[in-house]
Amino acid sequence: MTERRLEGLIEALRRLPGVGQKSAQRMAYHLLQHDRTGAEQLAAALQSAVLGVQHCSRCHTFTEAEVCDLCLDPQRDARQLLVVESPADCAAMERSASYRGLYFVLMGRLSPLDGVGVDDIGLQPLLARAGDGVVQEVILATSFSAEGEATAHVLGRLLKARGLTVTRLARGVPAGSELEYVDLSTLAHALHDRR
Amino acid sequence: MTERRLEGLIEALRRLPGVGQKSAQRMAYHLLQHDRTGAEQLAAALQSAVLGVQHCSRCHTFTEAEVCDLCLDPQRDARQLLVVESPADCAAMERSASYRGLYFVLMGRLSPLDGVGVDDIGLQPLLARAGDGVVQEVILATSFSAEGEATAHVLGRLLKARGLTVTRLARGVPAGSELEYVDLSTLAHALHDRR
Repeated sequence: MTERRLEGLIEALRRLPGVGQKSAQRMAYHLLQHDRTGAEQLAAALQSAVLGVQHCSRCHTFTEAEVCDLCLDPQRDARQLLVVESPADCAAMERSASYRGLYFVLMGRLSPLDGVGVDDIGLQPLLARAGDGVVQEVILATSFSAEGEATAHVLGRLLKARGLTVTRLARGVPAGSELEYVDLSTLAHALHDRR
Repeated sequence: MTERRLEGLIEALRRLPGVGQKSAQRMAYHLLQHDRTGAEQLAAALQSAVLGVQHCSRCHTFTEAEVCDLCLDPQRDARQLLVVESPADCAAMERSASYRGLYFVLMGRLSPLDGVGVDDIGLQPLLARAGDGVVQEVILATSFSAEGEATAHVLGRLLKARGLTVTRLARGVPAGSELEYVDLSTLAHALHDRR
């Protein structure tokens, strides 16, 4: 067969995370059979994003400007810097409406087994950003997985060495949980960090 | 936030089958952070496929030409027409290297609950194709799900009314199976269709 365009599309779709041969095939067939407009829109959206989306020069998140809206907001408290792994974490924290400081987005976390070392996450930009003389407290909000904890540990050591106050999000029982169904490790942490 | 390009990309990725908000976000972040070349390639592949891939005028499968390579192959037996739901089924049958006739690809199957009726699958093109005077036997190879069986039933009736020999792929115990682990319905069919 000489169906290179179809093969090429399936091949390109496979580069998406979590998409294997079968899913890529299904996606390609679906787009060509039922949603050619969607295929054109996706092509245009990809090109537009690649051309226009870059990293905020202050917090490292994705933005279309030099500095993102949140970093430019004069209402935010510039003395607090909350460090998250991804823009999605940042959005989740914003939805909680409980934080009024600024953010730094690592765009990853340490994962030595996957070859992600300190140079692959925004470590130097973070140290530069946190050392601007205004930031007083750095709140580590990396995830509570093994990699997230390791990342928090490494960052905490480096930031403390620069004289900054370093805190970590509290671990404990999630809101609305019944103790019976909370896992043992969470219960142990909740007891240890009781207040 | 005024991040319309990023939002637009996530929105466009959600149109892919099986991709929800979370996956679309993960895909967008991955492409922008780690694989901008992949994003550009995907955009190009989508455009190329939308422009260049159409349906074979004989068997209805996806092709870049007017008639696909398989339909043009003079080695194939034009008296047999095997009806499948998708190009993937056609490829699977070809891999089995057990069929030397031609194909017709429905590009779907009847699914009244999802609003897919006889006009939404290639019914008229199939009847026209099967009635070319050369085709003698139509082998129904739609899947053995409820929708696939219903499709085979409807197609079979219409094709028989036109004087064609209509057969269906055999149901039975899969190659390599131990009887103990074969489901009851398959065993019942295998017994009924014994030869």
